[in-house]
Amino acid sequence: MENKEAMQAVELRVDLGERSYPIWIGSGLLDRLGDASRQAAIPAGSPVLIITDEHVGRRYLKRAEQALHAAGYRTASLTVPPGEHSKSLAVFEDCVRAGLEAGCDRMSTVVALGGGVVGDLAGFVAASYMRGVRFIQVPTTILAHDSSVGGKVAVNHPLAKNIIGAFHQPEFVLYDTATLQSLPDRDVRSGLAEMVKHGLIWDAGFVDWCEANAGKLLAKDEEALAYGLAQGCAVKTAVVSQDERENGLRAILNLGHTIGHALEAVAGYGELLHGEAIAIGMVGSARLAERMGAAADVAARTEALMRQFGLPVSIPAGYSTEAILDAMMHDKKFKEGRTVFVLPTAIGKVEIRRDVPVELVRNIIEELKGETT
Amino acid sequence: MENKEAMQAVELRVDLGERSYPIWIGSGLLDRLGDASRQAAIPAGSPVLIITDEHVGRRYLKRAEQALHAAGYRTASLTVPPGEHSKSLAVFEDCVRAGLEAGCDRMSTVVALGGGVVGDLAGFVAASYMRGVRFIQVPTTILAHDSSVGGKVAVNHPLAKNIIGAFHQPEFVLYDTATLQSLPDRDVRSGLAEMVKHGLIWDAGFVDWCEANAGKLLAKDEEALAYGLAQGCAVKTAVVSQDERENGLRAILNLGHTIGHALEAVAGYGELLHGEAIAIGMVGSARLAERMGAAADVAARTEALMRQFGLPVSIPAGYSTEAILDAMMHDKKFKEGRTVFVLPTAIGKVEIRRDVPVELVRNIIEELKGETT
Repeated sequence: MENKEAMQAVELRVDLGERSYPIWIGSGLLDRLGDASRQAAIPAGSPVLIITDEHVGRRYLKRAEQALHAAGYRTASLTVPPGEHSKSLAVFEDCVRAGLEAGCDRMSTVVALGGGVVGDLAGFVAASYMRGVRFIQVPTTILAHDSSVGGKVAVNHPLAKNIIGAFHQPEFVLYDTATLQSLPDRDVRSGLAEMVKHGLIWDAGFVDWCEANAGKLLAKDEEALAYGLAQGCAVKTAVVSQDERENGLRAILNLGHTIGHALEAVAGYGELLHGEAIAIGMVGSARLAERMGAAADVAARTEALMRQFGLPVSIPAGYSTEAILDAMMHDKKFKEGRTVFVLPTAIGKVEIRRDVPVELVRNIIEELKGETT
Repeated sequence: MENKEAMQAVELRVDLGERSYPIWIGSGLLDRLGDASRQAAIPAGSPVLIITDEHVGRRYLKRAEQALHAAGYRTASLTVPPGEHSKSLAVFEDCVRAGLEAGCDRMSTVVALGGGVVGDLAGFVAASYMRGVRFIQVPTTILAHDSSVGGKVAVNHPLAKNIIGAFHQPEFVLYDTATLQSLPDRDVRSGLAEMVKHGLIWDAGFVDWCEANAGKLLAKDEEALAYGLAQGCAVKTAVVSQDERENGLRAILNLGHTIGHALEAVAGYGELLHGEAIAIGMVGSARLAERMGAAADVAARTEALMRQFGLPVSIPAGYSTEAILDAMMHDKKFKEGRTVFVLPTAIGKVEIRRDVPVELVRNIIEELKGETT
């Protein structure tokens, strides 16, 4: 940011032509939300709608409002219940109502103050309110470093997750690492799973760094978090810049997600955190890769890495193999009915495979179940 | 179309760079839906979802399905109740459910078979299903020649019309003039109001033609309809090509809509047909323009034209002036709280004015009410 008195912030740029935007990461940035909005030319003539959840709102809504008011913005807000259930069309309709009642118009901006659920929900509100208004992401979880980059926003249908959505890029992302201090440890670990994933698909050096700094990251050291989040965002940025609409390359971001989403579906959303599900999925993918010819150390190192971050490496008791396979068949990533897997070929490298035999998948799932302790 | 045996069709092109698409207009084209889909490279590996309403579906769904099946497509369909109430989030959710149950994936295509309601609803389904799939418009009303060009799709919120939507361009528009033969006369007149509007904002020669051919158009002469629809679409195409996201020029398409939407809101949607509401609105706009300096014949000729097409030129009894003014203040076209009017400066030319005094608007509304017979 321009102000010389600004707290230290890392700035990244997501390069998408005229939809390019900056990501600022640093301690205490929440209080700079108003200044950042001015700098990003967010119009002050129309109300800004802040969408948050009860957990995050209790801690940070007042500060976000004060920062915006100090910079001359009028605000309205809606606080939704925490958790995946708020990504429903019913809550979406509530958000639109809040916007209409506050007099939000085409020049208004929607601020997502919260984790991935709030980001996805508020993002879809911004994408569709009056056919699209401006959008700002203020992520307050580690996991949200993933969902806050790339413009994928969505709500759920009772029959399928993230099935109703859009690609809608924010004006900017403001990441205050101080807000991560209040995260429960389980959410920290789950978020770090996505961070590590970004190393595994793209950057072996970053995987080395994660291994060396796992302790600091788990202890929420702000400097380590800022570096790790910036690296994670940088990988996602690089991938998204090359494939905004998910036509090809972007699929590599789904490492661990084919199995992970199926586990989440079978579990009932919430029983397994997203990061936990994809941790198991990444271990499964590495084993699939090994059976299909990847170097033997990839699976062992992936599993060790997940253990280092306190993440699960096997499927909890009580999950049916057939139910998991069935859930995969309904995943929207099955383009034209063909199973897509992202498989590591080495640490920091992956490939997209459509030729993984169902029998092999079944074997790996059984194996992952067998190791439940 | 390429096939030499094709029935005669007019082809227009909406030029939007990589989102460009053709509009085909002609008698009997519905039976060519499958061929046209092949020609437009619609993938046949994934199910095509046809969304229609009970009135249109009863007459044309089977033919649309047969045309697609003959060209090698698998289809699923959802028939929604006719009328504006189907543009709700609840019916939208039903559409997404139908897509999921049919196994529609990212390579699937949504076909809107019907009028403006079905086009808007199905279009928003296509825009948001899995963050966007392909979309085909098969309009079966005259009014839909307006909504089928330009990519504006939306559903309603209980508090406001068309407030939840997207810009999503179709792969092509297939306009079978034979399907217009079953339209009730009142819908014909309402649809012709939008056709004439396209002349009034852009093309004085087309207004002359409309005056000379009103009888044929009202009698649903297919040749006249094909020409008139093509001209109307051509005007809309020219405007949309220059302003896809409605940042400036595109606002001229709203001639008659500031007053018209307010009348629809006060009436309860459906009591006044859309074309009827904007006919009154166009007369009102022309009178506003005259008071603000436009040539004196514009208002008289606009009113005569509406009468010629059997359209209302005054506000029915029982409408409150204050309620109408209040409804205008909530129209989403009031950018940053400033009233926008599209006013004719001559036949075939309009300008966008933000300086129309509220008192003048009030006077014109009173005047339009006074003439109720």
